[in-house]
Amino acid sequence: MRTALLQSSGRPGSVAENLKVLDAAAGRAAAAGAGLVVTPEMFLTGYAIGDGIARLAEPADGESADAVAEIATRHGVAVAYGYPERETARSDGGSGGETDDGARVFNSVQLISADGTRLANYRKTHLFGCFERDHFTPGERSVVQAELNGLRVGLMICYDVEFPENVRAHALAGTDLLLVPTAQMHPFQFVAESVVPVRAFENQMYVAYVNRTGPEGEFEFVGLSTLAGPDGIARVRAGRGEELVVADADPVLLAASRETNPYLKDRRPGLYGSLV
Amino acid sequence: MRTALLQSSGRPGSVAENLKVLDAAAGRAAAAGAGLVVTPEMFLTGYAIGDGIARLAEPADGESADAVAEIATRHGVAVAYGYPERETARSDGGSGGETDDGARVFNSVQLISADGTRLANYRKTHLFGCFERDHFTPGERSVVQAELNGLRVGLMICYDVEFPENVRAHALAGTDLLLVPTAQMHPFQFVAESVVPVRAFENQMYVAYVNRTGPEGEFEFVGLSTLAGPDGIARVRAGRGEELVVADADPVLLAASRETNPYLKDRRPGLYGSLV
Repeated sequence: MRTALLQSSGRPGSVAENLKVLDAAAGRAAAAGAGLVVTPEMFLTGYAIGDGIARLAEPADGESADAVAEIATRHGVAVAYGYPERETARSDGGSGGETDDGARVFNSVQLISADGTRLANYRKTHLFGCFERDHFTPGERSVVQAELNGLRVGLMICYDVEFPENVRAHALAGTDLLLVPTAQMHPFQFVAESVVPVRAFENQMYVAYVNRTGPEGEFEFVGLSTLAGPDGIARVRAGRGEELVVADADPVLLAASRETNPYLKDRRPGLYGSLV
Repeated sequence: MRTALLQSSGRPGSVAENLKVLDAAAGRAAAAGAGLVVTPEMFLTGYAIGDGIARLAEPADGESADAVAEIATRHGVAVAYGYPERETARSDGGSGGETDDGARVFNSVQLISADGTRLANYRKTHLFGCFERDHFTPGERSVVQAELNGLRVGLMICYDVEFPENVRAHALAGTDLLLVPTAQMHPFQFVAESVVPVRAFENQMYVAYVNRTGPEGEFEFVGLSTLAGPDGIARVRAGRGEELVVADADPVLLAASRETNPYLKDRRPGLYGSLV
C-alpha cells in the first residue's frame, strides 16, 4: 500500500487551516496513488498550544472527525491524523489534562477509511515530559489495529515507539504497518534516524514515522519523517521542512523478510518475566 | 573503564594459538590503559569447527580457564572470552549439542578478573539457526552480571542482543556495560551498525559488541566491532579486519545520560503482558 507522510506543522491553533492543509495533501497523496495519508502528532490543532489543547479537544466522533471523513471520501484515500481527544463519558476520577468541565483529554490518533468510516482510535500510552503530563491523560490500551487494504495497520504516537516492549506487543498482535504520528524535537533526532528503522527490523514490520517541523513554542521539531521497512532500510526520508513524501509498504516483501528473520519465532518469552 | 575489543578470528581449531593471540592482545590492552579485554564469540576454539566444538569444549573451570586467568593476572587486565562450555554434572535429559559421552555443550562467555578470579559465566540463551541448534544446548539464565571496576557488567552473546526484551532485562537489573561477544555474519551488518547503538540508547547503558572477521566455513564474518554509549553514539568502530580497538565506558556520563533519558522510569509494565 502506497503511504503518504504529511510532514507539516500546519498552523498551530487553527483547526480550519489544518483541515485545509490536510485536504490539499490528501489530494496530492491520492494523485500519487497513495491509499493512506498520515499526519504528525496533534496535527489537527497544533502541539505547543498550551490551554488551546483542552479548548480545541473533540470527541473521536466530533465535528473534525466528520470533516476528515469528508476529505478522505472526496479524495478516496484513508487518513490517520493526530488530535486532542475529549472524552465523551467520564468514567472515573481521571488524572492529567482535563477541560474546564472536567472531561479528560487524550493525545490521540484516529484512522478513517477512504469511505469515511472511523476504523480505529488510539490514545497515547507513554506521555513525554512535563508538558504532555500536564495536558493529557495517558491511554490504557497499548495495541489498537485495523485492517486496511490487506494490511494490518497499528497506531502509536511519538514517545510510544521508543519503548521496544510497546512495538513488540504490536508485532505479536500481527501489525504489518505501524503508523507513528510524532512531535519529535531536537536533540532527539537519533530516534528518527536510528530507533525507527531498528524497530521495523527487529519486529519485521513497516513503520511510518511522521513528524512536525520547525519551531513551535519552546520546541524545535526535526522533521526527518520516514517509512522504514522490515530490512531496516528507510524507503523514504524527508528533510527538515514541510514536505509530503510517499513510499510503499509491500506485503510480499514483508512476508519474505519474516521468513528470513524469524525473530518472533526465536523469542524465549519464559526468560522475559522481569519486563512485566 | 577503558575497554579493549579484540576483533579477531584467531586460528579456528587451535586453542593454543588462540591463547597466544589473547595473550598478545591483553598485553596491548593493558599498555593502552584498559581494565578489560573482550573477545568474540567462541574465540577460544573457533566458531565454524563442526564436531571440533564438542571435542574442544571444556568446563567453566577447565584448563583453558586457568590459562586465561594466568594471562589476565600477568597483564593485570580482566578478560571476557567466548568458548564452548562442557557441562560438568549432567542434570537432565538435555537437548541440542552434546559430547560423545553425552555431556551438554553450551555457547558461553566467561569473565575473569585481573586477579584471576572467575567472576561470571553466561550460556547463550538465544541460539541462531541450524548450525548452533545442532551444536549447543541453550542456556536458561538470561541475566548474568558481575561488578568490575565500579561498573555492573552484563554478559550476552551475539543473537541474544537482537531481542530487545533480553537487553531490557539487563537494564532492569542494572547493567551498566553489556559485553556481547559475537560471530556476526554477512548480510546482517545492520545489527552491528544500527541495532547495537539503539540497544545502548534505549536501555541507557554501554554495549561492547565484539565480532569475528573474514571467512570461516560457510560464514563470512563482518567485523565492525563497537563500543556504543547511552547516547547511541559509537565510541569506537572497528573495520572489517583483525584489530584491537579501545574505548571508555564512563560512569559519570552514564549517570547524566540516565537523568536526561528516563526510559526505565517511563515504562508502563502493566501494558506489556503479551510479551511473556
